[in-house]
Amino acid sequence: MTLNKKPVTGMRDILPEEMQIRNYCIRVIQETYGQFGFTPIETPCVESIANLTNKQGGDNEKLIFKILKRGEKLNVAEAATEEEVVDGGLRYDLTVPLVRYYSNNSAHLPSPFKALQMGNVFRAERPQRGRYRQFMQCDIDIFGEPSNLAEIELILAATTTLERLGFKGFEIRINDRRILKAMAAYSGFPEEGCDSVFITLDKKDKIGLDGVQEELLGNGFAKEAVEKYLELYRSLETAPNGVSFLADRLEGVLDPAVATGLQEIIDSVENTKTADFRMVFDPTLVRGMSYYTGPIFEIAIPGFGGSCGGGGRYDKMVGKFTGSDAPACGFSIGFERIVMLLLESGFQIPDRPGKTAYLVEKGVDGQKLWEVISKAQEARKKGEQVLVVRMNKNKKFQKEQLTAEGYQEFVEFYKEALKN
Amino acid sequence: MTLNKKPVTGMRDILPEEMQIRNYCIRVIQETYGQFGFTPIETPCVESIANLTNKQGGDNEKLIFKILKRGEKLNVAEAATEEEVVDGGLRYDLTVPLVRYYSNNSAHLPSPFKALQMGNVFRAERPQRGRYRQFMQCDIDIFGEPSNLAEIELILAATTTLERLGFKGFEIRINDRRILKAMAAYSGFPEEGCDSVFITLDKKDKIGLDGVQEELLGNGFAKEAVEKYLELYRSLETAPNGVSFLADRLEGVLDPAVATGLQEIIDSVENTKTADFRMVFDPTLVRGMSYYTGPIFEIAIPGFGGSCGGGGRYDKMVGKFTGSDAPACGFSIGFERIVMLLLESGFQIPDRPGKTAYLVEKGVDGQKLWEVISKAQEARKKGEQVLVVRMNKNKKFQKEQLTAEGYQEFVEFYKEALKN
Repeated sequence: MTLNKKPVTGMRDILPEEMQIRNYCIRVIQETYGQFGFTPIETPCVESIANLTNKQGGDNEKLIFKILKRGEKLNVAEAATEEEVVDGGLRYDLTVPLVRYYSNNSAHLPSPFKALQMGNVFRAERPQRGRYRQFMQCDIDIFGEPSNLAEIELILAATTTLERLGFKGFEIRINDRRILKAMAAYSGFPEEGCDSVFITLDKKDKIGLDGVQEELLGNGFAKEAVEKYLELYRSLETAPNGVSFLADRLEGVLDPAVATGLQEIIDSVENTKTADFRMVFDPTLVRGMSYYTGPIFEIAIPGFGGSCGGGGRYDKMVGKFTGSDAPACGFSIGFERIVMLLLESGFQIPDRPGKTAYLVEKGVDGQKLWEVISKAQEARKKGEQVLVVRMNKNKKFQKEQLTAEGYQEFVEFYKEALKN
Repeated sequence: MTLNKKPVTGMRDILPEEMQIRNYCIRVIQETYGQFGFTPIETPCVESIANLTNKQGGDNEKLIFKILKRGEKLNVAEAATEEEVVDGGLRYDLTVPLVRYYSNNSAHLPSPFKALQMGNVFRAERPQRGRYRQFMQCDIDIFGEPSNLAEIELILAATTTLERLGFKGFEIRINDRRILKAMAAYSGFPEEGCDSVFITLDKKDKIGLDGVQEELLGNGFAKEAVEKYLELYRSLETAPNGVSFLADRLEGVLDPAVATGLQEIIDSVENTKTADFRMVFDPTLVRGMSYYTGPIFEIAIPGFGGSCGGGGRYDKMVGKFTGSDAPACGFSIGFERIVMLLLESGFQIPDRPGKTAYLVEKGVDGQKLWEVISKAQEARKKGEQVLVVRMNKNKKFQKEQLTAEGYQEFVEFYKEALKN
């Protein structure tokens, strides 16, 4: 009998060094979000296959790890399709479980309900560097708050957390799905073409506005619409205030309350923030998921390509699932990316207790061993970390190894007489 | 499109109140075990099906949630057996993943390696009250320490953790698999009958020594062996020191070092413990898993039927998996049972920050809203928990609800003038 030593394809073992940083991050996140009144919740890793394949998950639904039925319900020999042998799956995000949780437990939950959910999610993606098939997500969501107080609190909570984890000088880019739609409508794109237009617009960071223009034309959109759309974006680049520029230009197409509400979020956060970051209106911000209905936002950390988290308002999703609408707004921080950035920057956990190793010669026993352990127990009671370990023959090498693990002090105990 | 609101059969949503206690326990456990030099590790929830079905898991191997192959590797229509459609499974414990982790990463791990692993495990058991198909396990293990310093440190670490979680007056029952075997050999049971004898002995708490006698005879063991065995246990009940009694009686059958080593563990823990508990030699303690090779131990909490955790030495398991032996010893505390006991006893998390709710009248905006939020930000910076929430029309009811959530202070902010 031998063992597959490697983790299953695309998943990984987490070594002590990274694990300590992960636990530190989890603690800071729980503590900070807690101060904003978010309460922790947990849902199972497994969801019914019906919940996972209801078309709210987009492409993620293609990446589900499916779970085999058990017992009498399973008949592999006679089954012709996957559906017949499967009844559950591993969750691919925390949003579907959260909405299910909210509708299952709302009688026991406060209103508004501010939830913090941290947990592993699973996606059977093609393995590649830095992408794993099991990874941690970290979401805060507010259900039942229709006003933009939700967005303001979510952004303040997430940015305060990032600051406490040592990040600064970053940006929160913000937009509104309704502005995106109004800009497309103003330019003359047909409503059913919007999703395609936004997919192209989303590439602007990589291909530039010229590239966007080219792709839109290539996709067969009317030259007139494309030119009007691009002119709007070019004018925005020089407008002193993008939001009010659009409020003017899109008059009659965009509900004025949308621009006012967005400006309120930006101003409120700017005027109350304690962390070092900027709010930036970004009319090219799309965010992938089509379920967003209002403001959307994203974290951009200097020197880090790609987003480190984001979120937005999705007022229609609870209703789609449960039949009755509830205002909903969420912010997800990219836990794995944050850990990676901290690891790469050589981050050291602050205020760690001192680490001392007691090396005990072999043969020390009875009364003497008790003295060593009692001493260790006392130090631990004071909050110190004490490793009690047998002294190796090659003491020098042992100490080198322990030093690499972060032990700064060594106390040696010998058979003959306690040297300390 | 509607949603299954309930979690999948046998799994559950965890509500905020319990979740806060769970997170508190996790924190205390991580901190305390950290002080003993245990480093946190993590393994994936999914393991290869081969690793999970290698006969080390006993009955748990019948309870595996199996994961369907994906893509081209899957052909349900042509498959005749489960094996053909499955390549992974959800782990049913943390021991198999730990041994795999150790053999996969030993080049990067210190020696001895002291690991703390907390994580969810999954078992497709028949649903019943208080038993769930997903639950948290919490294990500490020491690899590479052959001496009983491992057992001493494990017991001290686990009991210190229990004490910090508020438990006292409990017992650590301890025995040694080699004593169990020597007692059976001394009585004249055939070696291949040992497992069956121990299964019966394990029921002693429920059926008494007379019941054990009856069942052993019923199972066809020789009357002479059964009587000698029972006489041994009856004599033990009045022996002032069970370990030394057995050391004498089993001379020639039991290696004297086993009794000395066990007594050393008991004495060392008793002489260095800081928590309020007793070490008790229990010659009827069996522990289910057959992989144990030396000392075994179990936590017994007064007023709580059944064990709240336990562990032991399993020096042969790493070798069975990897081909080269490594001394190994572990202690698992029953996380779910501990949480249940704390919940039932009305446990309150100590030193929680004050909770204040700011009720903001609808219509307050701009400058005034910023003042409210800034005030909240300041309090949060000091470590307080502040909820900023819209004031409901029925303010009295809202405050009652918030009080039930633990908010002790309320500050109200109105459109007209800040009353605070």
